[in-house]
Amino acid sequence: MAHIDLGVDERKFPGINGPMHFRPETAGPLNALAEVLLRGPNTLTPGERELIAAYVSGLNACEFCRDSHSAFAAAQLDAGMALVEQVRADPEQAPISATLRALLAIAAAVQQSGRNVTGELVETAKAEGATDTEVHDTVLIAAAFCMFNRYVDGLGTVPAGSPDDYANAAQHIVASGYAALG
Amino acid sequence: MAHIDLGVDERKFPGINGPMHFRPETAGPLNALAEVLLRGPNTLTPGERELIAAYVSGLNACEFCRDSHSAFAAAQLDAGMALVEQVRADPEQAPISATLRALLAIAAAVQQSGRNVTGELVETAKAEGATDTEVHDTVLIAAAFCMFNRYVDGLGTVPAGSPDDYANAAQHIVASGYAALG
Repeated sequence: MAHIDLGVDERKFPGINGPMHFRPETAGPLNALAEVLLRGPNTLTPGERELIAAYVSGLNACEFCRDSHSAFAAAQLDAGMALVEQVRADPEQAPISATLRALLAIAAAVQQSGRNVTGELVETAKAEGATDTEVHDTVLIAAAFCMFNRYVDGLGTVPAGSPDDYANAAQHIVASGYAALG
Repeated sequence: MAHIDLGVDERKFPGINGPMHFRPETAGPLNALAEVLLRGPNTLTPGERELIAAYVSGLNACEFCRDSHSAFAAAQLDAGMALVEQVRADPEQAPISATLRALLAIAAAVQQSGRNVTGELVETAKAEGATDTEVHDTVLIAAAFCMFNRYVDGLGTVPAGSPDDYANAAQHIVASGYAALG
């Protein structure tokens, strides 16, 4: 049970959904940020960006964000959940582009501390073809999930009851996006 | 120098200002979030909320965010920068309310991991008079600065050139807020 009274049935509003319902004033900018970062116009596909979000959420051990964004990534990647699980387990060996691998290394550094992002990590990503905007967006996606993960777990929210719940949420996100959430 | 070409003179756009200029699409939701969290209607004063932001930024060793939000807090607290520095150095001994002290303990836990926020920390804050919304907002302010700090440092931005720059920025924020930044 959450640390505060979120005013909803937490089984029906798992994870971030409870706090979003509790405080619509902050839900608006949070959903707008997720929408532009994960679904706005970008040379990184929505599936690749959700993969970064799922990877960072796994590193932060945030069950709700890890499982929901894994489902959102899987729904938007040809290789589906098998690839998401490979990336989460070992990005070095996963069958992804060298560019995405280098961006995931930047994301892993951000998860520890912004100061862990070295010039060498960024130069490697650029040598593999990453643009300045892709580096920027990777840093901000990783940083944003260090926020979302702490928000969800810091309030003691509960994860969803079953894997189907995440798959169903994925269909909704793919169809309507984050901005429609409020 | 920043890890990517931000397209501005970094001395004139220190810290988060460069990335905000580089990517206005994400600057909008980020500034909207800062505005509602730090300046929107709240039982915590803007000075108290900026104090939480400055404290967390100090724990994350993000020089630009620490010094800018310290200046923003000092400009909005009767006891000014002396109190900000006391809180950053040792919140247990600083002359603040027991409620704010308990909220700062929650913020410090969030800085480490959302899962470090215990029911006991929240119960202590409630026993000292904190409302559910104050607990929520403290968790989200601390989480948001774990994002902002990583964004600023992960891109390798430079801090401002002098303390006056932060004091000048504080006057602008107090007068016009974050939303006016874009």
